[in-house]
Amino acid sequence: MKLIEGGVCAAKGFRANGVHCGIRHNRTKRDLALIVSDVPAAAASVYTTNLVKGAPLTVTREHISDGVAQAVICNSGNANTCNANGIEIAEGMSVLVEKTTGIRARDVVVASTGVIGQPLSLEPIENGMPELAAGLSEKGSEAAAEAIMTTDTVKKEVAVEFTLGGRLCRMGGIAKGSGMIHPNMATMLVFITTDAAISAEMLQKALSSDVQKTFNMTSVDGDTSTNDMVTILANGLAGNTPVVAEGEDFTTFMLALNTLTVQLCRLIAGDGEGATKLLECTAVGAETEEAAKISCKSVICSSLLKAAMFGADANWGRVLCAIGYSGAQVDVSKIGVSFKSSAGSVEVCRNGAGIPFSEEEAKKVLTEKEIEIALTLGDGPYSATAWGCDLTYDYVKINGDYRT
Amino acid sequence: MKLIEGGVCAAKGFRANGVHCGIRHNRTKRDLALIVSDVPAAAASVYTTNLVKGAPLTVTREHISDGVAQAVICNSGNANTCNANGIEIAEGMSVLVEKTTGIRARDVVVASTGVIGQPLSLEPIENGMPELAAGLSEKGSEAAAEAIMTTDTVKKEVAVEFTLGGRLCRMGGIAKGSGMIHPNMATMLVFITTDAAISAEMLQKALSSDVQKTFNMTSVDGDTSTNDMVTILANGLAGNTPVVAEGEDFTTFMLALNTLTVQLCRLIAGDGEGATKLLECTAVGAETEEAAKISCKSVICSSLLKAAMFGADANWGRVLCAIGYSGAQVDVSKIGVSFKSSAGSVEVCRNGAGIPFSEEEAKKVLTEKEIEIALTLGDGPYSATAWGCDLTYDYVKINGDYRT
Repeated sequence: MKLIEGGVCAAKGFRANGVHCGIRHNRTKRDLALIVSDVPAAAASVYTTNLVKGAPLTVTREHISDGVAQAVICNSGNANTCNANGIEIAEGMSVLVEKTTGIRARDVVVASTGVIGQPLSLEPIENGMPELAAGLSEKGSEAAAEAIMTTDTVKKEVAVEFTLGGRLCRMGGIAKGSGMIHPNMATMLVFITTDAAISAEMLQKALSSDVQKTFNMTSVDGDTSTNDMVTILANGLAGNTPVVAEGEDFTTFMLALNTLTVQLCRLIAGDGEGATKLLECTAVGAETEEAAKISCKSVICSSLLKAAMFGADANWGRVLCAIGYSGAQVDVSKIGVSFKSSAGSVEVCRNGAGIPFSEEEAKKVLTEKEIEIALTLGDGPYSATAWGCDLTYDYVKINGDYRT
Repeated sequence: MKLIEGGVCAAKGFRANGVHCGIRHNRTKRDLALIVSDVPAAAASVYTTNLVKGAPLTVTREHISDGVAQAVICNSGNANTCNANGIEIAEGMSVLVEKTTGIRARDVVVASTGVIGQPLSLEPIENGMPELAAGLSEKGSEAAAEAIMTTDTVKKEVAVEFTLGGRLCRMGGIAKGSGMIHPNMATMLVFITTDAAISAEMLQKALSSDVQKTFNMTSVDGDTSTNDMVTILANGLAGNTPVVAEGEDFTTFMLALNTLTVQLCRLIAGDGEGATKLLECTAVGAETEEAAKISCKSVICSSLLKAAMFGADANWGRVLCAIGYSGAQVDVSKIGVSFKSSAGSVEVCRNGAGIPFSEEEAKKVLTEKEIEIALTLGDGPYSATAWGCDLTYDYVKINGDYRT
């Protein structure tokens, strides 16, 4: 398992591009992305559980119901959600892909991200398609990653290399993060490509299982988006014996997927709206996996703890408070808390009560850009990790006037 | 039913006081409150569901297990939570009340609020008790209300007058709000007194029922406190025929209690940490009471919506998003949203989709200090209300370095 360059074009037979087509006013910001596979690919997807769903999700779900897709089109600047003609527009986007690339409309994954409830016109997309398609390239992952950004400050690309049945395979992904990030049984916008050969059924199984431990353990602001989606395309061009059941190859594939998605989660959380710090909360010693996961996620979701981390304040009482109200079944008298970073480690709470620690040392640890909040919940065998970010003035600023 | 002055001393036979005893460094901030009844009173209480519980709650629960209490002591500046000797200190506080006032230690309700996990010493409390007890007065509600404040910017006192069986009764309350406010099946620190005669059993029934529609529908930051508690003392000095069962008098009592608690909720939400605006979300037309309550509460808890309200931005998509992920069973295609304030009313969404509206007019409505987010969920008979506040730079500032 090796991290490599190339993002969503690292795998054989995938090309991508991103252009500015005019959905956004800012002419320097790309707002339309396209990813295509040279051949039809096995496809799997998970979606938001929000009852208010973006129209593109409905169209995508229908398009990949046969387990096959060959392209992904995604615009930013408008979520195409809560619009009366949303389905029509999302279908129209896939028809535009067919017209320009020859890939069947029903093999197109459609996604949108941006403001909810503002009409989206096909006009800029139609105008941008020729340039978008003409520029498709094996070096186009970066342009695509930029085109799906909303309030993201950095593009999010990761790729890994692994071996299945003696064949070298690659898997890469791009993500859009930043705000309305609190995936619940699904996730935000992530597009993953791989040249591994794997059945659509096993691909869905791998993805559905992985998101429970990765994207569903990530939160920026507690708001589950209406347009959350992760899609993975596997075109089989690596030439490995197709993965069609559980076994060694499937395990390797799962490991590759997890390596990729954990990195994307860290990128998404660390670039949360207004964030200055990545928070990683780890729990060990839990009696159940549920208790470990619920505790970690509650801690990284606490507004009070997030604000304390912004201020580099070792206010561990807020960590205990967040575990206490999380609903996790834990024995409070066994809880331990340490703050860790590249600057060191400070234990602040043992057996549910405070212990003396150096405020100065804690300040040093918490002033770093990546903070681990390490929980010990007892002597049980279960552990979990969750990713979040601090709560800052800029979060308020960004969201106080997002639409203008 | 009439709003009156006097707070927690409005009811006959109650005196109160608040002093600075030295738990806080700021010598101008009162930090110790005492409320006493001339005679033993029926008592009822509800507590936080946080597994991490302040020691005072354990002591209070034991003390009022016989349905009787005669005094409330409460300090601010230290929550007496997650301390190894917490129970001993909380018991010690009630013993100090007995020594100074003659009221039995086991008839004392004990409460603390402030930083979690810092040792609390009895010394300043012991030193402050003589002045605190000597100053007890029928005009002391304000001093007591000030003494329980933490990051609150205004003291919170309300009182009402009502009639039970021809006798004039009074009920008053004080509250501590501001941060770590997201009561769950219980509530924040609220002390209510009444001279109505009512059995401890009916008092508990009234309180437990009322908090479901009031404090449990209030949130500042989504963090359920470890020290949440509402206690009510009824000393019977109004001379009415005691309320011992359901019926007209109990209904009147419930109405008085609800009038009082709704006002306290509005005060707590409007004075949320850093808040510039009170948000009141109302829902009508729900198919179930649960759907109405869950929808309203999810909206006022959304960080994104709270930030939009701070920016006076009519971003109604975030309202729909918050209803969609709330878990409430609603038909999205029936949802309507209007923003209302003293400056007018603007309908922004009908049948789950946006409708044209004047951004200028919406800005005017949302620039006011009290905003109603009015939801229509369909044609059902149920309704609900929830209270919250906007998310501001000052919330981050206050909580970035709370302990110092």
